[in-house]
Amino acid sequence: VQLTDLTVHDGIVQRRFTLDAAEPVPGVVWTPVEPAGDLPLVLIAHGGGAHKLHPGVAARATCYVTECGFAAAAIDAPGHGDRPSAVWRDRWAAVLADPATEGQPMSVRIAPYHARLAAQAVPEWQAALDMLLAVDGIGGPVGFWGLSQGAAIGIPLVVSEPRIVAAVFGLIGGPDVLETATRITVPVEFDLQWDDELVPREDGLALFDAFGSADKSLHANPGSHVDMPRFEVESSVRFFGRHLRG
Amino acid sequence: VQLTDLTVHDGIVQRRFTLDAAEPVPGVVWTPVEPAGDLPLVLIAHGGGAHKLHPGVAARATCYVTECGFAAAAIDAPGHGDRPSAVWRDRWAAVLADPATEGQPMSVRIAPYHARLAAQAVPEWQAALDMLLAVDGIGGPVGFWGLSQGAAIGIPLVVSEPRIVAAVFGLIGGPDVLETATRITVPVEFDLQWDDELVPREDGLALFDAFGSADKSLHANPGSHVDMPRFEVESSVRFFGRHLRG
Repeated sequence: VQLTDLTVHDGIVQRRFTLDAAEPVPGVVWTPVEPAGDLPLVLIAHGGGAHKLHPGVAARATCYVTECGFAAAAIDAPGHGDRPSAVWRDRWAAVLADPATEGQPMSVRIAPYHARLAAQAVPEWQAALDMLLAVDGIGGPVGFWGLSQGAAIGIPLVVSEPRIVAAVFGLIGGPDVLETATRITVPVEFDLQWDDELVPREDGLALFDAFGSADKSLHANPGSHVDMPRFEVESSVRFFGRHLRG
Repeated sequence: VQLTDLTVHDGIVQRRFTLDAAEPVPGVVWTPVEPAGDLPLVLIAHGGGAHKLHPGVAARATCYVTECGFAAAAIDAPGHGDRPSAVWRDRWAAVLADPATEGQPMSVRIAPYHARLAAQAVPEWQAALDMLLAVDGIGGPVGFWGLSQGAAIGIPLVVSEPRIVAAVFGLIGGPDVLETATRITVPVEFDLQWDDELVPREDGLALFDAFGSADKSLHANPGSHVDMPRFEVESSVRFFGRHLRG
């Protein structure tokens, strides 16, 4: 793996990489221009329809680098960003066209699609982690951030990846992730939108309840699936600061 | 009103005062040694059984002064601290001995006691606010922090006191405060303990739902009524920072 396409902006170094795999996985890693020792790392999993350089992802990475002094990294999920999308578009269309789940909450309808996506994305994230922890100046510990589709990938990832010691999840619920969440024991911050039109409130609350972590914190705010207030980015900065700083 | 008994500790000036009233109300105000202009002010209402100089109150005031550069103030609730306690002790004993509410959640049993306490404490806080905003160097805007008994006083106080522009409440629920909370429209941070043995979880969630505020944020953590994690103090520092800073 080679780090390429280096850019520097506002004191942050951004480098691209591509993981070798049956289907290559493009990613980005951000580090401070002047890193202090071996850096903790935050993995950022974008939401459905977004990608590794989505403005929200890049802005979040900037916060973790400039406010925490950490490294941050993102990869394209299967079917997203610079990756082939046709197969996943068809699968997504099949979700919407499935008469068996019509009228059910979107979080229920999308669960099989999410599970399939996660089955491919979890080993990709683990390969990315192998690579990132070999980058000069990045040493861990490692945190994970992902909401909605990012949480659908992140919850099974954190269960199977002992190098991740703290995670922010949210905007998700339902039986599939709920069962998996019981096996998570690292500190969790869980973001819930009180009026989420895609995830029933009770399912989000039940998922928070299900996490096996002794240290877990629910943050709920009014508004729809996409209306999470900006101050929750700041809250995650402090959460990762508490758990990733030595 | 005179400010007396000035002490300086760790860059913080602490002064006592006593409000003239049918029953005098003792209080404390904390300010930075070197205040920057007219300061915002955070009112801190202690919980049941505590008082204006309880270690938790003083530590919280220290955070608001040193981290925000704000002023902070606390008064003894009726029957607490340096105030006559016999009458309130009897009323509290009557709550515990009331066979009509035996077996109900403590938040339900205590509601009439809380309502009586709030009826006396709300005008006392308003008199304290008149006095504090006349202190040289304190200019507002004003925030309020109070959990449990502090919230039982604070919710009706904030409804009737337009000078308070942001509030942190928590550890409370039930029909009395729920109806009052619908009339609150200022930003609210609401702290809930997920395993609160005194307040049923559903009552806390219903109260969060009831606040009329467009900007409200629920923070829920595992543990009992008294186990709120220390990082929620930090969270309130940032909440007041967002809403009280000009």
